[in-house]
Amino acid sequence: MSHRSPEPSSIRDDRPSGDPGDYAFRHDIRVRFAETDAMGIVHHSRYLPYLEEARVEYLRSIGHPYDAERSEGVDYAVLEAHLAYRQPLHFDDVVTVHLRVTSATRASFTIQYLLTVDGAVTSTATTVHACVNDKGRPVRLPRWLSELVAPLR
Amino acid sequence: MSHRSPEPSSIRDDRPSGDPGDYAFRHDIRVRFAETDAMGIVHHSRYLPYLEEARVEYLRSIGHPYDAERSEGVDYAVLEAHLAYRQPLHFDDVVTVHLRVTSATRASFTIQYLLTVDGAVTSTATTVHACVNDKGRPVRLPRWLSELVAPLR
Amino acid sequence: MSHRSPEPSSIRDDRPSGDPGDYAFRHDIRVRFAETDAMGIVHHSRYLPYLEEARVEYLRSIGHPYDAERSEGVDYAVLEAHLAYRQPLHFDDVVTVHLRVTSATRASFTIQYLLTVDGAVTSTATTVHACVNDKGRPVRLPRWLSELVAPLR
Amino acid sequence: MSHRSPEPSSIRDDRPSGDPGDYAFRHDIRVRFAETDAMGIVHHSRYLPYLEEARVEYLRSIGHPYDAERSEGVDYAVLEAHLAYRQPLHFDDVVTVHLRVTSATRASFTIQYLLTVDGAVTSTATTVHACVNDKGRPVRLPRWLSELVAPLR
Repeated sequence: MSHRSPEPSSIRDDRPSGDPGDYAFRHDIRVRFAETDAMGIVHHSRYLPYLEEARVEYLRSIGHPYDAERSEGVDYAVLEAHLAYRQPLHFDDVVTVHLRVTSATRASFTIQYLLTVDGAVTSTATTVHACVNDKGRPVRLPRWLSELVAPLR
Repeated sequence: MSHRSPEPSSIRDDRPSGDPGDYAFRHDIRVRFAETDAMGIVHHSRYLPYLEEARVEYLRSIGHPYDAERSEGVDYAVLEAHLAYRQPLHFDDVVTVHLRVTSATRASFTIQYLLTVDGAVTSTATTVHACVNDKGRPVRLPRWLSELVAPLR
Repeated sequence: MSHRSPEPSSIRDDRPSGDPGDYAFRHDIRVRFAETDAMGIVHHSRYLPYLEEARVEYLRSIGHPYDAERSEGVDYAVLEAHLAYRQPLHFDDVVTVHLRVTSATRASFTIQYLLTVDGAVTSTATTVHACVNDKGRPVRLPRWLSELVAPLR
Repeated sequence: MSHRSPEPSSIRDDRPSGDPGDYAFRHDIRVRFAETDAMGIVHHSRYLPYLEEARVEYLRSIGHPYDAERSEGVDYAVLEAHLAYRQPLHFDDVVTVHLRVTSATRASFTIQYLLTVDGAVTSTATTVHACVNDKGRPVRLPRWLSELVAPLR
């Protein structure tokens, strides 16, 4: 097939590592019953809030709580998300979300995730984010974020 | 960076068309208030249930309602999902989800989506599905689905 | 037991009718797969967005779309909700939400709901709402709403 | 108005205490961004999964993990839920859910909840549950639960 996409994807160039040791941060989340579906597993849409919760805890851990960023008028829009589901998650599982910032441009950055339960890989994911102001317009990354991702450029 | 993924991705080879005319099916969904978030837009996790609703209506439209498939012990696990968010969705928007099956293997198939509001493209997405039995084990695609996607192989 | 609640409840005085003929408005919603849980039924938290969708369609039907109200700085906070689950809902069910405004004070109003599937009652519900301004402060009901509920006082 | 409800409500007889000291168990939950809505607060439907998470942790704390109960074919259907929203919850709030079992019959039991943030009461809630078997049929409460609630009868 030959149809084309209007813009290149930063997600496609690189795949998340399956090795927890490659990730800078980890956060545990226990699966709620409300997140399961009639197949008896966690519904595939429920992973994105897990990734978001892990991002929020990561920002807190490096001294830049998301809430503070938002109060200063900077927000992080999600531009892209990719999820690869390998093994299902079940009610009451404790999911460890491993994450790392893997690349950045002037106005966007990419985060990769590895999800494990009891050490076994269940899924990987990637999200791409832009910094936007309170009107949703793209702005440059804040300085602390630029410096964080500088080695990645 | 050089880490590797254990399996190739069928999503990465191809990108959804931005032309509604390229899609076989369309389904309208009105955004619920409960689907918005504190940024005033639809939360990015809420798109996956929209795609799922469109798949369900597509299956119904071609005479293979999902519920009937499930009763016969065939289910469709989601293996991968990719979402590219271009323009936000807002409360009360009527989103048109355009959909087409774009490729298939013996045990999996790929669907692409284009989301529009009043004709303007807001996002694209791709999902990859496997057929599984009631124990979650992969099985061959049912015959009708094989025949549907045969021209795509 | 003798502990007391700080405020009286408008919900407790009255119970929703089980007769669809008692309701002013009805709206159909098809259950999404994403709304089911591992018990194979619709999760009990998913009913509240159904009620909300029905309220939104009701407001539209009487010429006061919720979105327009919100643009004018009036919002409807939920003060109380009561749900009585009699029969479960399942994936792909078409749920008919019957609703009516049943009472009002200067700053709040009550809505009752009857949920049916194929004519059989599955649940009833009641919600109590306050009108609030864009800072979340209670304000008097808009005139059209006062007039709508005047016969109920 | 004179319409009648087909069954009496165990919720209406009693209201949750506003005093945290009256509750047997407490569990903290941090609000996710995905749980907020375009009013900038936690959507009212999102409280029910919070209550459920607290119930699950309570059962674990008394040696009867929900997952184990479900494996033995006993499940807890939600018959009724009542929520009184006093103050909104916001993104990143740490909500303390206080909980106690307040009454029981042969086949159902009632739980009351008090939600606080930094010690301030934000809402109260009540849920009524039935024990059901794996076909969704009501069964007697398991012995440990009967004994737990015996003093309440």
